[in-house]
Amino acid sequence: MIVNGKKIKALFFKDNTLKIIDQRKLPFKFEIYTAKTVDDVVYAIKEMIVRGAPAIGVAAAYGVVLGRHDLIESYKKLKSSRPTAFDLFYALDYMLDNIKRGEKPKDIAKKYLNDIVNRCKKIGENGEKLIQDGMKILTHCNAGALATVDYGTALAPIRLANRNGKKIFVFVDETRPRCQGQLTSWELKNEGINHCLIVDNAAGYYLKKGDIDLVITGADRIAKNHDFANKIGTYEKAVIAKENGIPFYVAAPLSTFDNNISSGDEIIIEERNEKELYNINGKNIMPLWIKIKNPAFDVTPKKYVTGFITENGIMKV
Amino acid sequence: MIVNGKKIKALFFKDNTLKIIDQRKLPFKFEIYTAKTVDDVVYAIKEMIVRGAPAIGVAAAYGVVLGRHDLIESYKKLKSSRPTAFDLFYALDYMLDNIKRGEKPKDIAKKYLNDIVNRCKKIGENGEKLIQDGMKILTHCNAGALATVDYGTALAPIRLANRNGKKIFVFVDETRPRCQGQLTSWELKNEGINHCLIVDNAAGYYLKKGDIDLVITGADRIAKNHDFANKIGTYEKAVIAKENGIPFYVAAPLSTFDNNISSGDEIIIEERNEKELYNINGKNIMPLWIKIKNPAFDVTPKKYVTGFITENGIMKV
Repeated sequence: MIVNGKKIKALFFKDNTLKIIDQRKLPFKFEIYTAKTVDDVVYAIKEMIVRGAPAIGVAAAYGVVLGRHDLIESYKKLKSSRPTAFDLFYALDYMLDNIKRGEKPKDIAKKYLNDIVNRCKKIGENGEKLIQDGMKILTHCNAGALATVDYGTALAPIRLANRNGKKIFVFVDETRPRCQGQLTSWELKNEGINHCLIVDNAAGYYLKKGDIDLVITGADRIAKNHDFANKIGTYEKAVIAKENGIPFYVAAPLSTFDNNISSGDEIIIEERNEKELYNINGKNIMPLWIKIKNPAFDVTPKKYVTGFITENGIMKV
Repeated sequence: MIVNGKKIKALFFKDNTLKIIDQRKLPFKFEIYTAKTVDDVVYAIKEMIVRGAPAIGVAAAYGVVLGRHDLIESYKKLKSSRPTAFDLFYALDYMLDNIKRGEKPKDIAKKYLNDIVNRCKKIGENGEKLIQDGMKILTHCNAGALATVDYGTALAPIRLANRNGKKIFVFVDETRPRCQGQLTSWELKNEGINHCLIVDNAAGYYLKKGDIDLVITGADRIAKNHDFANKIGTYEKAVIAKENGIPFYVAAPLSTFDNNISSGDEIIIEERNEKELYNINGKNIMPLWIKIKNPAFDVTPKKYVTGFITENGIMKV
């Protein structure tokens, strides 16, 4: 990704420390957090300095590097930093397995990071073919480089289309409650891509008006039958896109496909804390007596999906 | 409407002053603003102490009462307080026409207010028949008593169903950008109606899940062919409701039907100031460099509407 005109990754290892773009400060301030110890990495994961499953996995991998003097203790600390993060556990086991085989922790972590970045780059190259010069694209949430170390998933094709000189415009859903659309706006601004942020309510208006040619979102989990779970609101956008004949693509690495789940009906939707609605970027925006329901994800049935963009190509459904 | 256990109207005339529930302070604080002069009323309209077209009309009518010593000047001041408000102009002309006929300003304003309240009450009585015991209802924006002096439009059937002892639950869309869902929550809380606020993105999730039996919204303008304009996001909810076979009703007085517009295509959508997105209840929630598009309304084609609830009954389409 490009930030202030320079190429940078959301996480990188330098001078025996892990450098992380501090997502707590964004989009207001661009700051780098430096983790010198495994405890610093645990803190970064817990405090959401790093967000996004693939990025958390990479942070954990480098947490093992920083805590290699006491592997078992470091593994335990990192594992408990986020109790339900699949990528985190996967990264930790990946580190341990390869350390047992005699590889150097730093080399393993680097390989792990590069693998994620390369998959995202390929998603970008494959998805970029869908984007024609002059297209207007809608995206939801932040499926960007901040979440995946570099390129992003949904943002990878958009990033590469722009770098290849295609003139594009991106509509960015605000994505209440956590307003990750602000992070997406920050990434697009830094990349020099024309865009605007809209409230989630306005996506339908632009889809109906013919102002959007293509929708690309990420995915958290894709069932065997190709129903998929993603950030709350994705379902609405997919239905409205189909209603208006606009192609709807999901960009995700193959690791997101979970064949253990036969359909979206089996995906349990997490209800998250009501505080997520009360505050935006630390500002209280409503009285605490207001009762809230806060489902974090929704499931979009496969019939609304035009295709999946993966590192292996585009899979039409 | 009921506030803190007592019956009250959003605006009422008392001791030769116009009392207005101060909507700037809600939902954080319940305060009454007192307008003693026509200038106080102009201020209340300009500063959005009073919001909602019918309520603004009533405020203007009483502005004429307070400024009756200089009718022409008062008319001018009030007319310029909000340059595009149809109800405001209508109320002013209604006052002047009837003053010319020799009626007392106070009596005319009272008649005007009562007429609006009675229409809303009838909308409530007619719409209440659609609501069965145990139903869960989704509403968007604030089509409540705050906007219409009493009862509301979309909230009138809900209010009366509850008063008639029906157990109901209301899902309240937050309604970004201005978050009028907070006002709706405040009205429902005061009325003792079970409800929760959800982000606009979550409405589709609950509609698909079968947790919502009925959708009722208000309308700003209804075209001859029954396409209608309402708060941004209404279109999305209507499409998703239809997709899931859930009835979608629009509650509006007959004055909202505009036969001069043949279809929704003729309705021009206002793009409002980007500041509406930057701030919620006076709190800045995003950096000002973020580029915004902010359409205030959208148009929902008639094919998504099950029926219109008016003071004359329910009109199926």
